[in-house]
Amino acid sequence: MAVNPPKLSAPLPVPGFRVGTASCGVKAPELKGQRTDLTIIAADVDCQAAGTFTQNRLRAACVDLGEKAVREHGSDIRGIVANSGNANAGTGIREAEWAQMMITTTADALDVRPGQMLSASTGVIGTPFPIDRIEFGIQEASDCASDWQDAANAIRTTDTFAKWTSRRVGDFTITGIAKGSGMIHPNMATMLGFIATDAPLTHAQLQPMLKRAVSRSFNSISVDGDTSTNDTVYLLSSGVGLGQAPLADTSVFEVALTDACIELAQLIVRDGEGVSKFVTIHVEGAASEDEARHVGRTIAVSPLVKTAFAGSDANWGRIIAAAGNAGVAFDADRISLACDDVVMMEQGNLHQDYSDADGMEVFARPEFSITLNLGMGEAGATVWTGDLTHEYITINAEYRT
Amino acid sequence: MAVNPPKLSAPLPVPGFRVGTASCGVKAPELKGQRTDLTIIAADVDCQAAGTFTQNRLRAACVDLGEKAVREHGSDIRGIVANSGNANAGTGIREAEWAQMMITTTADALDVRPGQMLSASTGVIGTPFPIDRIEFGIQEASDCASDWQDAANAIRTTDTFAKWTSRRVGDFTITGIAKGSGMIHPNMATMLGFIATDAPLTHAQLQPMLKRAVSRSFNSISVDGDTSTNDTVYLLSSGVGLGQAPLADTSVFEVALTDACIELAQLIVRDGEGVSKFVTIHVEGAASEDEARHVGRTIAVSPLVKTAFAGSDANWGRIIAAAGNAGVAFDADRISLACDDVVMMEQGNLHQDYSDADGMEVFARPEFSITLNLGMGEAGATVWTGDLTHEYITINAEYRT
Repeated sequence: MAVNPPKLSAPLPVPGFRVGTASCGVKAPELKGQRTDLTIIAADVDCQAAGTFTQNRLRAACVDLGEKAVREHGSDIRGIVANSGNANAGTGIREAEWAQMMITTTADALDVRPGQMLSASTGVIGTPFPIDRIEFGIQEASDCASDWQDAANAIRTTDTFAKWTSRRVGDFTITGIAKGSGMIHPNMATMLGFIATDAPLTHAQLQPMLKRAVSRSFNSISVDGDTSTNDTVYLLSSGVGLGQAPLADTSVFEVALTDACIELAQLIVRDGEGVSKFVTIHVEGAASEDEARHVGRTIAVSPLVKTAFAGSDANWGRIIAAAGNAGVAFDADRISLACDDVVMMEQGNLHQDYSDADGMEVFARPEFSITLNLGMGEAGATVWTGDLTHEYITINAEYRT
Repeated sequence: MAVNPPKLSAPLPVPGFRVGTASCGVKAPELKGQRTDLTIIAADVDCQAAGTFTQNRLRAACVDLGEKAVREHGSDIRGIVANSGNANAGTGIREAEWAQMMITTTADALDVRPGQMLSASTGVIGTPFPIDRIEFGIQEASDCASDWQDAANAIRTTDTFAKWTSRRVGDFTITGIAKGSGMIHPNMATMLGFIATDAPLTHAQLQPMLKRAVSRSFNSISVDGDTSTNDTVYLLSSGVGLGQAPLADTSVFEVALTDACIELAQLIVRDGEGVSKFVTIHVEGAASEDEARHVGRTIAVSPLVKTAFAGSDANWGRIIAAAGNAGVAFDADRISLACDDVVMMEQGNLHQDYSDADGMEVFARPEFSITLNLGMGEAGATVWTGDLTHEYITINAEYRT
């Protein structure tokens, strides 16, 4: 039950990149042919690359390999191979070997060196990785006869719609795809984002820009502490490889990149498992942007806040109590709280005009925003989240995903 | 739908203490007479006292007052007054005044000084405190014509059964009552525990013992980050006031106190909102007890783990992935995992005899245990939790509590 999923325009191709997909039956052999589950993004030239990776201690071997490749081949990456249906995480002694085989097979098929390939896997944890079926799919996908929309479809797990974004920035293109059922990384479904551009930017320019953009987008959507073992965002740029000089001023590109990441991140929340409401949380008046974001995320992961959203119950005391749990210093007698245009608290006091009926009216909307001012400083951050519904329990308790 | 709630023997009276209850209609005037919602525990002599309090930044005024009273009057406390139905938290400019009025009225009724009274409130946040109805109830309860079982009933909010424990330790008695719908502090329902003993122990002896006991009991049950604004545990001892010399050896008492706290904490989990399973999580092989407990709690709060419990789905990959999120250092290739007698992983490898059918059989039990060995050291900790069910969503989304 996605919340107002926007009708997306067809994604723009990006010079220097080709895309292939295949149906391997990763989850079960009998699913082969039913849906695509393998994606190859092949670069015709050496790409400048950047990546951000899960902070989970138990991260998958493919994440380790990807981080190493970005570090060692940040200026000559030749593509990404990704599968859905099995995370190849917590699979023991053969995990690293399987992850390496997936990369080597793809590199061979594309005639590049294994060190130049990035990989990502998403799906169930602790189940042996079906490397034979995946290697078969790699051969099929390496013809690169698909497009970005096909790729966005092939990386889906429990996502109800495919997620992509495209934009022009000056003479260049940014196209990104993402997957994830959002608000709380349901089923360890892994948040994946792959972004390609032909803007001529170097690895050294891309990496800090991606880090900042991810912090204001993918890392600003609601998580429940269940950060996946496989979360990965890759950003590849073909521009330098296509023979252009790196941009001197990256500021316009960074704004466009951040917007693209926010758009993809919001799509993930809108498609969150069981999500029936899309809620924007603005935290203002904080001592720093990091503190503001941390307060916002603490509100966004509270089951009591999320069930109040679900029930259209303006039980706003849960919001400020959750904020109090963030471990961020603020004083109760300085905070102000509003939901859309309805003010609940002003500088620590109950607002005299507030009525429960007004609050209920806002909480019943499919989309609304919360604005919490901590009264401590000038910094702010925005976090996006959904509600916690029966549908979420049904998806995660009643089906093995 | 409480999980195997034990049939509790009647609580033992404790020399030096009397108990009173009243029905004020705290939540709504028309509820007066329907159920008790005010409790007074009155000490006939000066008590040695200890307390532990919520770490929520936005804590209620009654918590601040209680902490101050324990610090300044730790050797001459004369009692506790507590109400359910309204937390008097997030209520703005009059919050502290209302909290003080509740204490002063009780102190007057008992003929002690206000500084000698402790207080606690539990219920909805951000709703004006009905001090008039509460003051009326204090007069009624101050006759102290009730018993500990009545008190355990009067502090309930959404609890489905009253929670108490009693035991003899040598010549002395420990009786404690608690409330809380457990696993995740549903509805900010507040975890309250009041424990009384006539064992002669001083404030200086009691405070560190209570801190250790709470860490292994109330702080080892599952919470979802929604630590309440009002959580409080008080421990009062009348023994010294009754004229006895303080115990020289406190070790036997501390074991009994810890057992009492664990019993009360487990009752809270068994009565957790919507909980249908009672799960014990042992984390072993950790570098320290604190790290072990932190890993256990991270597993215990994961919605994905909790929904797997609810669905009797042995999706154990979610357990190790949640452990990886605790921010505690360990290596994937050293961990071992078992659920009851079924081994899933051994030293980082999939156990060859594991079958999903065996795992499913364990997860279908109403009570089972998880044992995760991190392979990093010798320390361990135990955490108790429940599952996350449709019933939880119904309780928290569909009713204002």
